[in-house]
Amino acid sequence: MDKNHTAADPMAALAPLRAQIDQIDSQLVQLLAERAKVTAEVGRVKQQHALPLYVPERELALLKARRAEAEVAGVSPELVEDVLRRVMRESYQTQETGFVCCRPQGGKVVVVGGAGALGQRFVSLFQRSGYQVEVLEHHDWPRATDILKDACLVLVAVPIHVTEQVIRQLPPLPEHCVLADITSIKAAPLAAMLEHHTGPVLGLHPMFGPDISNIVKQVVVVCHGRQAECYQWLLKQFSVWGAVLTEKQAKQHDDLMQMIQAMRHFSSLVYGVHLAEEQADLQQLLELSSPIYRLELAMVGRLFAQNAELYADIMLSSVAVTGLLQRYQHRFNQLSHLLAARDKAGLMAEFAKGQQFFGELAPQFLQESRRLLQKASDERS
Amino acid sequence: MDKNHTAADPMAALAPLRAQIDQIDSQLVQLLAERAKVTAEVGRVKQQHALPLYVPERELALLKARRAEAEVAGVSPELVEDVLRRVMRESYQTQETGFVCCRPQGGKVVVVGGAGALGQRFVSLFQRSGYQVEVLEHHDWPRATDILKDACLVLVAVPIHVTEQVIRQLPPLPEHCVLADITSIKAAPLAAMLEHHTGPVLGLHPMFGPDISNIVKQVVVVCHGRQAECYQWLLKQFSVWGAVLTEKQAKQHDDLMQMIQAMRHFSSLVYGVHLAEEQADLQQLLELSSPIYRLELAMVGRLFAQNAELYADIMLSSVAVTGLLQRYQHRFNQLSHLLAARDKAGLMAEFAKGQQFFGELAPQFLQESRRLLQKASDERS
Repeated sequence: MDKNHTAADPMAALAPLRAQIDQIDSQLVQLLAERAKVTAEVGRVKQQHALPLYVPERELALLKARRAEAEVAGVSPELVEDVLRRVMRESYQTQETGFVCCRPQGGKVVVVGGAGALGQRFVSLFQRSGYQVEVLEHHDWPRATDILKDACLVLVAVPIHVTEQVIRQLPPLPEHCVLADITSIKAAPLAAMLEHHTGPVLGLHPMFGPDISNIVKQVVVVCHGRQAECYQWLLKQFSVWGAVLTEKQAKQHDDLMQMIQAMRHFSSLVYGVHLAEEQADLQQLLELSSPIYRLELAMVGRLFAQNAELYADIMLSSVAVTGLLQRYQHRFNQLSHLLAARDKAGLMAEFAKGQQFFGELAPQFLQESRRLLQKASDERS
Repeated sequence: MDKNHTAADPMAALAPLRAQIDQIDSQLVQLLAERAKVTAEVGRVKQQHALPLYVPERELALLKARRAEAEVAGVSPELVEDVLRRVMRESYQTQETGFVCCRPQGGKVVVVGGAGALGQRFVSLFQRSGYQVEVLEHHDWPRATDILKDACLVLVAVPIHVTEQVIRQLPPLPEHCVLADITSIKAAPLAAMLEHHTGPVLGLHPMFGPDISNIVKQVVVVCHGRQAECYQWLLKQFSVWGAVLTEKQAKQHDDLMQMIQAMRHFSSLVYGVHLAEEQADLQQLLELSSPIYRLELAMVGRLFAQNAELYADIMLSSVAVTGLLQRYQHRFNQLSHLLAARDKAGLMAEFAKGQQFFGELAPQFLQESRRLLQKASDERS
């Protein structure tokens, strides 16, 4: 040992402990590598047998058993659960190299707009599931009839504002071909598909963008069109990919989307523009930002890394948006008036409306975001 | 083996693999327990020597080394880093049982409002750092002179709207006593403290609520008042607790806070009230919510699990808020007009302002929130 190190030197006391930690962490790395090999094997078995990647019951049983062991070993069960959940995410990702094909005879899938960001994801998923996949893009329309010939599925994955037009432009499809779309609104495209095609029709809304790493646990809304028995294989295929399917009526879906998508995007847009026009100093804002404020800012800022036209289209997609927007504007102005008048009691009364509305979900959300923020602050270093 | 299980039975193929996974995970639990014992020892050494809990360089070096090992072992370096960050968070928490006292002679700390949520956190931190801590609450004012006698620090931790009044109400403090506050606004309280006390004065703003599990990596804004040399021990104490200190002028702090706190809370308040008055079906909204929409909703909903008066006070805290608010309202109405007029080009032009403003931070935020959302979706099962 360095003779300058004495018992009073904290570094001399820390060094062997840190070496021990490093050794434990190296073992941890080896263990994770070993686990990855086994889960890759699990993935192969699941693919062979068309088993879903994501099995909630297995996850819960596994977590429960390890949490119990953690208690006995005197280490935090929450820590063990968080670590295992993160490890399981990885295993879903590595298991996602290939999937079983849920249509026994395979078949040809045509993705209209398959060169777009989300379209590409589906092209890849269908290919990895053993389908023959063709893409129909702008320049392919002269060959459309050829491309669509013998298709078992035509998936429309084009920007919202051209969806209906593209559907109407499709040449006649094979009688048993499934016609489906993945647009963010559902009523109008579904009606257009039902009108254009006499065979099986299905509206889908994958509730995620092209930027997710895999679709395990992601929600996909299902709006039934016609001949549901003819597209069960497709729904099963989504389950095999790990998606969580939720059935909704098209109209109901669209109403809900206005509130959780259109109005929310609008709110973030206004806030971002407000910061921009105030010429706020972003670096200064970030310097002051604990995880919670950084996340608040990130949730606004992330909008602007995305496609302006797509977001404009989502906001403009609904005919009913005007009424909803007017009421939103009215409320903004009312609350703004309370704040300008420094009416604390009035503001608190409005706050109470939100409290009553969110009810028990408010503390649940606080808890959830708190856990997430702890994870966010793990990042800082 | 159960005779019903054949090679073609996927469960028969999965069972031994799952047993292997369970075994690996059990080893993982043991390893984490072992690591926790070593880090507890590290914590004791750090406390003995007044070393900061959080040492960014050590974290980074540790992560870099283990990432390199992960590459060699053929397991994802991102997975290893995420797991280790989570594990390190735990070690900070377990190390937080006691702290070294940064004021060699110790001393008496009086927390005015020490029964409040955030006040309690500081009472506990000072106690665990070896100070004698007294609380001054409403009913203690008749005894205030006694309580404050010989104090080395008076920390004002009362609601915003009474901070200045409470400061002015304090009896004369010992000449070398540090007077500090932790209010969300800084200019007015700092001025009040400088006026009331001739000794050392310091404005602090911990950028977090009472709900965090520990203050490691949390930002604390420091606004210098007077005789900085007399409160270095206090700043050092915050570092020992793990906080990240950031110096700001009081006025500059307040301007920035309006934008990242007051306007942001206002925006969430309006959105929450809007959902409430639309009588939105929260259960339905949640059913449709992939991690991103759930998080968007949670960031609004979490507001309503908190103290209405505190949030009203934060929004009302600034005299300059009126101008900022009027411009915000103006922008909301402008953009709302564009949307109502279905002016897509106009909306996209506004979007471009945000894009330009956020610049390279927008994709960074997208990336950040994506990582966080992956963690959020680890939760679902």
